[in-house]
Amino acid sequence: MKRIAVLTSGGDAPGMNAAIRAVVRKAISEGMEVYGINHGYAGMVEGDIFPLDSKNVGDKISRGGTFLYSARYPEFATLEGQLAGIEQLKKNGIEGVVVIGGDGSYHGAMRLTEHGFPAVGIPGTIDNDIAGTDYTIGFDTAVNTAVEAIDKLRDTSSSHGRTFVVEVMGRNAGDIALWAGIASGADQIIVPEEEFDINKVAANIKDDFEQKGKNHHIIIVAEGVMSGEKFAQELKAAGDNSDLRVTNLGHILRGGSPTARDRVIASWMGSHAVELLKAGRGGLAIGIHNEELVESPILGTAEENALFTLSDDGKIIVNNPHKARLDFAELNRDLSL
Amino acid sequence: MKRIAVLTSGGDAPGMNAAIRAVVRKAISEGMEVYGINHGYAGMVEGDIFPLDSKNVGDKISRGGTFLYSARYPEFATLEGQLAGIEQLKKNGIEGVVVIGGDGSYHGAMRLTEHGFPAVGIPGTIDNDIAGTDYTIGFDTAVNTAVEAIDKLRDTSSSHGRTFVVEVMGRNAGDIALWAGIASGADQIIVPEEEFDINKVAANIKDDFEQKGKNHHIIIVAEGVMSGEKFAQELKAAGDNSDLRVTNLGHILRGGSPTARDRVIASWMGSHAVELLKAGRGGLAIGIHNEELVESPILGTAEENALFTLSDDGKIIVNNPHKARLDFAELNRDLSL
Amino acid sequence: MKRIAVLTSGGDAPGMNAAIRAVVRKAISEGMEVYGINHGYAGMVEGDIFPLDSKNVGDKISRGGTFLYSARYPEFATLEGQLAGIEQLKKNGIEGVVVIGGDGSYHGAMRLTEHGFPAVGIPGTIDNDIAGTDYTIGFDTAVNTAVEAIDKLRDTSSSHGRTFVVEVMGRNAGDIALWAGIASGADQIIVPEEEFDINKVAANIKDDFEQKGKNHHIIIVAEGVMSGEKFAQELKAAGDNSDLRVTNLGHILRGGSPTARDRVIASWMGSHAVELLKAGRGGLAIGIHNEELVESPILGTAEENALFTLSDDGKIIVNNPHKARLDFAELNRDLSL
Amino acid sequence: MKRIAVLTSGGDAPGMNAAIRAVVRKAISEGMEVYGINHGYAGMVEGDIFPLDSKNVGDKISRGGTFLYSARYPEFATLEGQLAGIEQLKKNGIEGVVVIGGDGSYHGAMRLTEHGFPAVGIPGTIDNDIAGTDYTIGFDTAVNTAVEAIDKLRDTSSSHGRTFVVEVMGRNAGDIALWAGIASGADQIIVPEEEFDINKVAANIKDDFEQKGKNHHIIIVAEGVMSGEKFAQELKAAGDNSDLRVTNLGHILRGGSPTARDRVIASWMGSHAVELLKAGRGGLAIGIHNEELVESPILGTAEENALFTLSDDGKIIVNNPHKARLDFAELNRDLSL
Repeated sequence: MKRIAVLTSGGDAPGMNAAIRAVVRKAISEGMEVYGINHGYAGMVEGDIFPLDSKNVGDKISRGGTFLYSARYPEFATLEGQLAGIEQLKKNGIEGVVVIGGDGSYHGAMRLTEHGFPAVGIPGTIDNDIAGTDYTIGFDTAVNTAVEAIDKLRDTSSSHGRTFVVEVMGRNAGDIALWAGIASGADQIIVPEEEFDINKVAANIKDDFEQKGKNHHIIIVAEGVMSGEKFAQELKAAGDNSDLRVTNLGHILRGGSPTARDRVIASWMGSHAVELLKAGRGGLAIGIHNEELVESPILGTAEENALFTLSDDGKIIVNNPHKARLDFAELNRDLSL
Repeated sequence: MKRIAVLTSGGDAPGMNAAIRAVVRKAISEGMEVYGINHGYAGMVEGDIFPLDSKNVGDKISRGGTFLYSARYPEFATLEGQLAGIEQLKKNGIEGVVVIGGDGSYHGAMRLTEHGFPAVGIPGTIDNDIAGTDYTIGFDTAVNTAVEAIDKLRDTSSSHGRTFVVEVMGRNAGDIALWAGIASGADQIIVPEEEFDINKVAANIKDDFEQKGKNHHIIIVAEGVMSGEKFAQELKAAGDNSDLRVTNLGHILRGGSPTARDRVIASWMGSHAVELLKAGRGGLAIGIHNEELVESPILGTAEENALFTLSDDGKIIVNNPHKARLDFAELNRDLSL
Repeated sequence: MKRIAVLTSGGDAPGMNAAIRAVVRKAISEGMEVYGINHGYAGMVEGDIFPLDSKNVGDKISRGGTFLYSARYPEFATLEGQLAGIEQLKKNGIEGVVVIGGDGSYHGAMRLTEHGFPAVGIPGTIDNDIAGTDYTIGFDTAVNTAVEAIDKLRDTSSSHGRTFVVEVMGRNAGDIALWAGIASGADQIIVPEEEFDINKVAANIKDDFEQKGKNHHIIIVAEGVMSGEKFAQELKAAGDNSDLRVTNLGHILRGGSPTARDRVIASWMGSHAVELLKAGRGGLAIGIHNEELVESPILGTAEENALFTLSDDGKIIVNNPHKARLDFAELNRDLSL
Repeated sequence: MKRIAVLTSGGDAPGMNAAIRAVVRKAISEGMEVYGINHGYAGMVEGDIFPLDSKNVGDKISRGGTFLYSARYPEFATLEGQLAGIEQLKKNGIEGVVVIGGDGSYHGAMRLTEHGFPAVGIPGTIDNDIAGTDYTIGFDTAVNTAVEAIDKLRDTSSSHGRTFVVEVMGRNAGDIALWAGIASGADQIIVPEEEFDINKVAANIKDDFEQKGKNHHIIIVAEGVMSGEKFAQELKAAGDNSDLRVTNLGHILRGGSPTARDRVIASWMGSHAVELLKAGRGGLAIGIHNEELVESPILGTAEENALFTLSDDGKIIVNNPHKARLDFAELNRDLSL
């Protein structure tokens, strides 16, 4: 393979630039040429494709967002869209593609591979909700950003004797809420993976202020459960009469200079993606599992999350949909005395 | 004066702890004893008063919030409340009080002074909306927190070609919005001190995306104008069809470790408050003006913001209600090309 | 076991407070009492021991350093020292001890266990050089602190066309250097685990400036190799004539509010330490391996790093001295084009 | 004036990019063209000059360093150098120049003005040691970077009962040391503007540990006094036997994303520089004094720091060599009990 391309797709995540940089430089190290595709699959179809060299990615490792831009592009789910994209790849002499993004992005990668263009996926999303990897690029940064914000809220919460409901991103996954909650010493963490009883939540607040002599209370709510505002309303309806405030950390979790860990993981995965393409292998999603790089086949089904993990001897043995660490929810209950 | 007390009142602000530390240590340097009052005027009335020594404020200079807690306590506007507070002060042998907080807090300080207990005010609020000072303690930190958050939003905004409406605190004052807006290179800044035309705002967005080839647009809205959500609705109603997102930075602006500048100003003001009390002077609010410490009498009227600035020879010459720097709004328009 | 104690020993590391908090609160959750020992083994021998309750560790999770203080205390290697410590433990009714620290600290924990006081070790050191765990508490924070500093140096390095030699901590381990180097996009990383040729290092600098058109060059040197100053002298002696500067990040890597990851790992390990003591198990060091908690017996030998990892069925199968990821050195060479 | 140029000179400082951005965008707002000159006066002489448009400075406001690069270029002190530079300016149709940098840079600006090319200076240096302005661009960022680092050192210092000597930049000016020292609650601050007695310094340490029961001690030393290493040696020679460590914060103070204040001041000054050039005014240095913009003539003498401040009615009345706030040294002595 002499020429590959790289694109970012879906929601942006800190570390995507580090992954692009790694793809570009590893490809050049391996004697390949590398092209960038702007705006994800949309740019592929429109031919927004251009050569990248080593200097184009200089000083990019520390930058949030993605300098190749990202977009959702449902049209790529159609055969017509895929063929239009492939035409552009051929026109530019491109033989393989690295796709950095979430689940949706992987399906496009699988389609390209089926059409004869090996494509490899790198998991880039703050939500940490992709099968086949313990960590996604951007998760560590998002959690740290959330913790820094909650540390600030704690100052104000503690000074005024308040309850804070803090909404964090995480559509179907409670990972950000769980990690940020434990790390910030939150009093309660509400995630989509676990049932909760609003009356019990309200009783816990009352108990903290009235029995335990605490002077503040912080509850983390993953957006996949409901909005922070709605949660606060339900709390009030359940009888909570503490001095309640709501903050939605919102999009600030998606941006910012990536943490060291996100940069390292992104660099490692980006480099490995090139090795896979060099070996002519496509239809794979890269992951990090047990602190080592792994790759999983992207299956040709319509199912979401249809990724499988390889066994040590190379066989597909475990269907590995992402699971949040619910033992962390238990841990937090012990520590939020 | 042999024994003074210190309290924090109103909304908390980063740097309040640095001011308390300065009061405590300067008082001890001057041979005085110093007591802390918890929960502002409420704690004064309830007698939640205790001695502080130099070690109690060790390592506090870097902490957000206020370790003396704060509260709003409208009951202190009544004579009954004031007399109850004074009884507690007398019981503890306290002869003067330092009040760290906003306008409301100052009125309490004036009442105490009128009743024979000299009280001095230090401006602690992130809003920077207190007369008699160029800067309030907490403002610099809040602006930097806002800028860090907006820098993150810019990553995501730029990656996706979006418009972001960012709501920042500032009930009647646009200072946070103006400073944070200029510092983050915002495209438009909407403050209560200046009229705006929602159609013009929408037209500017359209112009940026369609004429100037920009790929993102950031608008800062001070909460005193309206909520970010409402602003976004009005924008849509005015015809904006960009990919719009809203983020309310909310309470994270109130917390966090104070910036160097807030710590220095707080230390300076806290020290000066002790000097004033030592000289038996009360009914004064401390400010920083032209990079020097100044003090202004707190007037005995019911008017909000009724502070006056002293002339160089000690006469009251200028009624100095706070004004946001609207030349900064003009500056930003020039630079947000 | 009804009463346990916790101490920190050796060099301090961010996250130690989070670990102490977890020990205290988990113990209380389990119905045990918990005491703190100040200044490590020195405080044990001197009887500087006091009860801790849930509130003592409130708001401690975000603080750097250790509020129990730490110290090196070689006297505890003697039988006399150990017996003196045990006497104090008995006097306070303590039946088990959690020791947070590095290798040296573990030997003390083993001695206590041998004398009938079950003690459990938690790996707290920024160096990440303890056997039996993939990560030590404090490592993630130290790497991020280093990366933030190197990002700043890059600004100046790039503005002026300079070479920077950056010394980072890591006595016998290159982990901080490797992770920080990859994450900051360093041009060369020099670690104790890998030989280097100073002439080749100098040639790489020359090549970057003269052949590749780069305008700056950053070299990370782990302190275990030699000091940054000495390295720069050797570079000059090897013919380097670039505009060279040296910075030693030094002790700033040891401090600061811990990252989310360090807080989570510390919380998890601290909680597990209590579970082990509750089960009457001592002489064990807790680790995190493959993202799960593991424990390894601390062996009774004089050997440094004499930790073993348990197999899935509980047998000791792998001697697991710490190894830096030298594949990361290789990775960085590919990406620092 | 239809076309101006902008360059950065001397040591880089955070906020220089914000100033360049302001110059570029304000010039375009005013209907002028604007060129960038790389590498300061060296680039001017070599003709490394190129047009800048509004997009070239997009997203630059948050970046440390200077994207126009900087350099010291003593050759510009010669008439030959100046004429060579002017030839290049003429070749590019440039009629005025904005110079961002320190004192040395201003002399070049004066020479250009004398040769008929109006040039305006903007004070960009972290040292805050330029006459004619209360604050230089970069100072606020450097102080905050120092404070964050010292806060980290305090964690370790406090955990271990140590004394830390912290060297900060500041060749002839103690401003960084004074501000960072107060803001970090340092125990002693040593600046070039004030004599010190090493025996008194050592006695203060002893007193803190032995009499006041403090468990750590932090001393800030400005590099203009001597190196931190040398200071520590002198301390030891003076009898200090505390557990002493030295850290030189070094070049990290020069880099990093600028604070809000540095960005705002830089934006304001950059915009004003264009207004001055538009009015045909050169030979002026811009400053901020009493929170308002001021300009001072750069004098044609050989003296360093030969800047004068204008009176309110436009007359030169005050020779205003920079003075560090020594009242801050006094303040810190009161507060470091």
